[in-house]
Amino acid sequence: MNNRKIIKALQEAMILGKKEIPKGRVATYIPELAYRDKNKLGICIHTVNSEVYRIGDFNERFTIQSISKVISLCKALELFGPEYVFNYVGMEPSGEAYNSLVELDLNHNRPYNPMINSGAITVAGMLCNEISFDEMIDYTRKVCLDKGIESDRLTLQSEMDNCARNRAIAYLLESKGIMASDVEDSLLLYTQMCSLSVTAKSLASFGMILANDGVNPQNNERLISSDVARTVKTIMLTCGMYDGSGEFAVLTGIPTKSGVSGGLLSVVDMKMGIGVYSPAVDDKGNCIAGRPILGHISKELKIHLFQQQETDL
Amino acid sequence: MNNRKIIKALQEAMILGKKEIPKGRVATYIPELAYRDKNKLGICIHTVNSEVYRIGDFNERFTIQSISKVISLCKALELFGPEYVFNYVGMEPSGEAYNSLVELDLNHNRPYNPMINSGAITVAGMLCNEISFDEMIDYTRKVCLDKGIESDRLTLQSEMDNCARNRAIAYLLESKGIMASDVEDSLLLYTQMCSLSVTAKSLASFGMILANDGVNPQNNERLISSDVARTVKTIMLTCGMYDGSGEFAVLTGIPTKSGVSGGLLSVVDMKMGIGVYSPAVDDKGNCIAGRPILGHISKELKIHLFQQQETDL
Amino acid sequence: MNNRKIIKALQEAMILGKKEIPKGRVATYIPELAYRDKNKLGICIHTVNSEVYRIGDFNERFTIQSISKVISLCKALELFGPEYVFNYVGMEPSGEAYNSLVELDLNHNRPYNPMINSGAITVAGMLCNEISFDEMIDYTRKVCLDKGIESDRLTLQSEMDNCARNRAIAYLLESKGIMASDVEDSLLLYTQMCSLSVTAKSLASFGMILANDGVNPQNNERLISSDVARTVKTIMLTCGMYDGSGEFAVLTGIPTKSGVSGGLLSVVDMKMGIGVYSPAVDDKGNCIAGRPILGHISKELKIHLFQQQETDL
Amino acid sequence: MNNRKIIKALQEAMILGKKEIPKGRVATYIPELAYRDKNKLGICIHTVNSEVYRIGDFNERFTIQSISKVISLCKALELFGPEYVFNYVGMEPSGEAYNSLVELDLNHNRPYNPMINSGAITVAGMLCNEISFDEMIDYTRKVCLDKGIESDRLTLQSEMDNCARNRAIAYLLESKGIMASDVEDSLLLYTQMCSLSVTAKSLASFGMILANDGVNPQNNERLISSDVARTVKTIMLTCGMYDGSGEFAVLTGIPTKSGVSGGLLSVVDMKMGIGVYSPAVDDKGNCIAGRPILGHISKELKIHLFQQQETDL
Repeated sequence: MNNRKIIKALQEAMILGKKEIPKGRVATYIPELAYRDKNKLGICIHTVNSEVYRIGDFNERFTIQSISKVISLCKALELFGPEYVFNYVGMEPSGEAYNSLVELDLNHNRPYNPMINSGAITVAGMLCNEISFDEMIDYTRKVCLDKGIESDRLTLQSEMDNCARNRAIAYLLESKGIMASDVEDSLLLYTQMCSLSVTAKSLASFGMILANDGVNPQNNERLISSDVARTVKTIMLTCGMYDGSGEFAVLTGIPTKSGVSGGLLSVVDMKMGIGVYSPAVDDKGNCIAGRPILGHISKELKIHLFQQQETDL
Repeated sequence: MNNRKIIKALQEAMILGKKEIPKGRVATYIPELAYRDKNKLGICIHTVNSEVYRIGDFNERFTIQSISKVISLCKALELFGPEYVFNYVGMEPSGEAYNSLVELDLNHNRPYNPMINSGAITVAGMLCNEISFDEMIDYTRKVCLDKGIESDRLTLQSEMDNCARNRAIAYLLESKGIMASDVEDSLLLYTQMCSLSVTAKSLASFGMILANDGVNPQNNERLISSDVARTVKTIMLTCGMYDGSGEFAVLTGIPTKSGVSGGLLSVVDMKMGIGVYSPAVDDKGNCIAGRPILGHISKELKIHLFQQQETDL
Repeated sequence: MNNRKIIKALQEAMILGKKEIPKGRVATYIPELAYRDKNKLGICIHTVNSEVYRIGDFNERFTIQSISKVISLCKALELFGPEYVFNYVGMEPSGEAYNSLVELDLNHNRPYNPMINSGAITVAGMLCNEISFDEMIDYTRKVCLDKGIESDRLTLQSEMDNCARNRAIAYLLESKGIMASDVEDSLLLYTQMCSLSVTAKSLASFGMILANDGVNPQNNERLISSDVARTVKTIMLTCGMYDGSGEFAVLTGIPTKSGVSGGLLSVVDMKMGIGVYSPAVDDKGNCIAGRPILGHISKELKIHLFQQQETDL
Repeated sequence: MNNRKIIKALQEAMILGKKEIPKGRVATYIPELAYRDKNKLGICIHTVNSEVYRIGDFNERFTIQSISKVISLCKALELFGPEYVFNYVGMEPSGEAYNSLVELDLNHNRPYNPMINSGAITVAGMLCNEISFDEMIDYTRKVCLDKGIESDRLTLQSEMDNCARNRAIAYLLESKGIMASDVEDSLLLYTQMCSLSVTAKSLASFGMILANDGVNPQNNERLISSDVARTVKTIMLTCGMYDGSGEFAVLTGIPTKSGVSGGLLSVVDMKMGIGVYSPAVDDKGNCIAGRPILGHISKELKIHLFQQQETDL
């Protein structure tokens, strides 16, 4: 895969993404999200060969929101192992919205998967007994190769003031005996993780680390174990886009996790990470420009999971 | 209806009720309920002619639990009128368990009815801005003709320590914009009301007041308006026994509200109130002796709603 | 209750009903219903003293539709007894729409109640092994005191051509082992019963028979057993208006069953039957004029179930 | 990947699979399945280099059951294109059982995906206007490289005699306007496709064709278009194992489709197809030996989708 091909694909993806933006809307449940500029759009590609391609508002900081679920899952799997973690949260796509309570309450004693709110709050409950938010910030900076990551305090405050539904989910988990720590502590850590400010570049780098089996290619430091990286990529593929995961997987064939602030984290295994920022989201809470952007990049660079490869990277 | 007939019906009902007790079990989610004597059984009838019939443990104090939902609904209807109240909570039987979240979350923007937890917490949210718990105790004492009613502090503390599911419901209501007051305040008032200690006698008297159109027959004081009494009796009939309401209505034809501590409040319109205490409950959380007891009394005294009357009281 | 009062109440109810009609719409799923005149309105009262009051289009024939569920339930209870019948179909209001499959499939092995489609098809399955449609027509004519009742063949044909959802329900029942007879035979009998043509007068007379404990007051012939009449009236009260049953019970206090063609069958126990015809229905499939009409009659004649009676009939 | 490694992996997988068999049970809803020998176990690998590895009962014929959903989807996508097909059936994992009606009825106007019964019946409805069952048999023989495939008439008859639930699903689809053809015709074709008799070898060959981009490597004949193969493999990965798809994807990283008769079709992209036959199934209707067998093969041959490759095939 040569530079020119990637640059061309990025430029075309920008155009396709911009066209889609008017159909979406920024999240409005807190002012810090509502006041974002809907027309911002940035894309960054970070290859395992340490090349970085970037375009548009790739350097704009925004709160990571639900993409933090991937980071927390990595940490929980590292700390507790898959057996413990998946005893409390499943690995199944749910077919339901990100903040559904129904599926949780109806027949099941554990959240469907760690990519929806109920599952991620469960994971936060595991973490918050063992690790501080400061340590989680450090970990996030490390896996994103971005020392500038901070907690956005205004967003955090607004989220905590507007988290009745997540609090309902957390207490429902508590009532089912699934919360490993204090409910309010767990909810706080979950919300704190959502408040970390990243850029499309940070996400591309994190994606690249996952694509590279958890190893930082620049210094060969292993940041995430091989087993964890593999598990997380699979779950991103089947569950990363909420109840739009299946269609997104068919279209792009790229494991991706979205956040309501408009971020996308994508992993092209053994090749690259891709980060997107575009705050206009669709009805499911996924960045609306993501489909044409990643659909186009996938097609042009022939990086769909089940793409027959004629050429190598 | 003569004395002898009532006394005989009560005695037979006691025997039938006792037989059923072994099939039930006391609620165990808090120690204050778990340690109750499963074999206690008391029944009291208070007629609108001011006759009182009592048998067994009619004088044993127990926490009123969900029967307080009727009292809170009366007060809310008095304070705010039906239009306001029923804008936030429905009047439909739900076919679901008392503590269901599913029905609330799925398609509906208001709880099905005020006799299930979600509806009663909504009502508590209306009340707690306007009236103190002390005033609610006073009101309860008045309508139950029982000055001995107090809040059972140990039970209250245990309930507050074990109310994760109700808290989940309350925050879900908040997230839907249905809570009129602070969530924690509302939940506290709801739980406080559940902690009031009554006897089968208190419940019989309250039932008698409802049967008598809301008027205390001894002094002709109106305690509940006629419209409110009529509405509350209808809702007790259709929704008072959770997802067992329909069958109970067919069997007994007597509007009844149950509580998980084993109490039953029954209203035989224009005739009498009936109070029952028997802490062994069935899977739906209804006093298990209630069916044979009220079924028998209904049949023997010919007081099913749709009973053809040959004789008058 | 004197004549003048009843006549006045009927006249006022007509006016109130007419006002509501524009808010409803006629059912359109088959042409035979779609082409009905939306503005028709008729009311009939038949008292147990054999007085008949009628106004408007009381004599217009229309297909009985879901009101036939009451007749089939009566017959099934007479033939098989309550234990058998209620082993296969419940007595609980469902909180769901009349044609819901969800409640049936989710957790339950029997339909909620015999007033919704799944329950009524189950009842038809019981009946169709034991009794022919011709015998059911005879029975319907008898309890409605109306020899003019016939099957409307065009409607029947249209219904059979458009019953995919009911057929789905019937096969779902079959798959759960609840259908007592051949699925198609059962579905046919269910649909045939819906095709019987009645008038507001027929329904008033049937209601009067139920109000009079199942006995025809003119010749003292018992048409329905006392137990069956009582059970059916209770189920009409809790389940007769689908997921609007609770509110209707609070408002009117009169057991009522609706049909999608705009009919209403109401029973004022020990006093009268009321029949209404008005083909404009609301979202739940209930005659939209029914609420103001029966609400007004209930209030003016003081016949709410829990109405305190100052005067006697 | 050398021969010895593959053979060793297969032999070990056989042992692991046999250990799991006692925990499963053969499907019993029709005698033709109930009477199968629970202890049969066969595995076949067919590589894109035309090597075939086989072990155990690889040559035993069994009815293909739900694996036919993949074949029908291929054909429908070839005939009608993805836009048409996915207008009527989604691509989302459902989190529900294979034969769920709830998800279909609740909020959604199309089946979640073509790998569950409702979706596959929808696909059959598209096909049966355009193509005969005989032509579908021919197509199946072609893509499975197996001329011995026939319809098992006894199984077909039994299935048709016991398909009340599928018929319910089909009529529910009809009622929602989703069936493109006559309901009974569609249901017949769906059931006929389930009755095709295959072997583990047939499935391995079909999987190899999908792995090889739809092309028969022996004669370079394209049997399935590249786009269709890619789409189908993605959907197999996210939806192929019903509500166990997510966990299976994490464990094995191999797109797989199961059938209730105990077959598994697996595709290792660009490398091989794997067929398994073992009629003991788990609660979700998936071959119970499949997890350890494919888990082991995936691990030993390093063919998890997100496995970091040190060596090449």
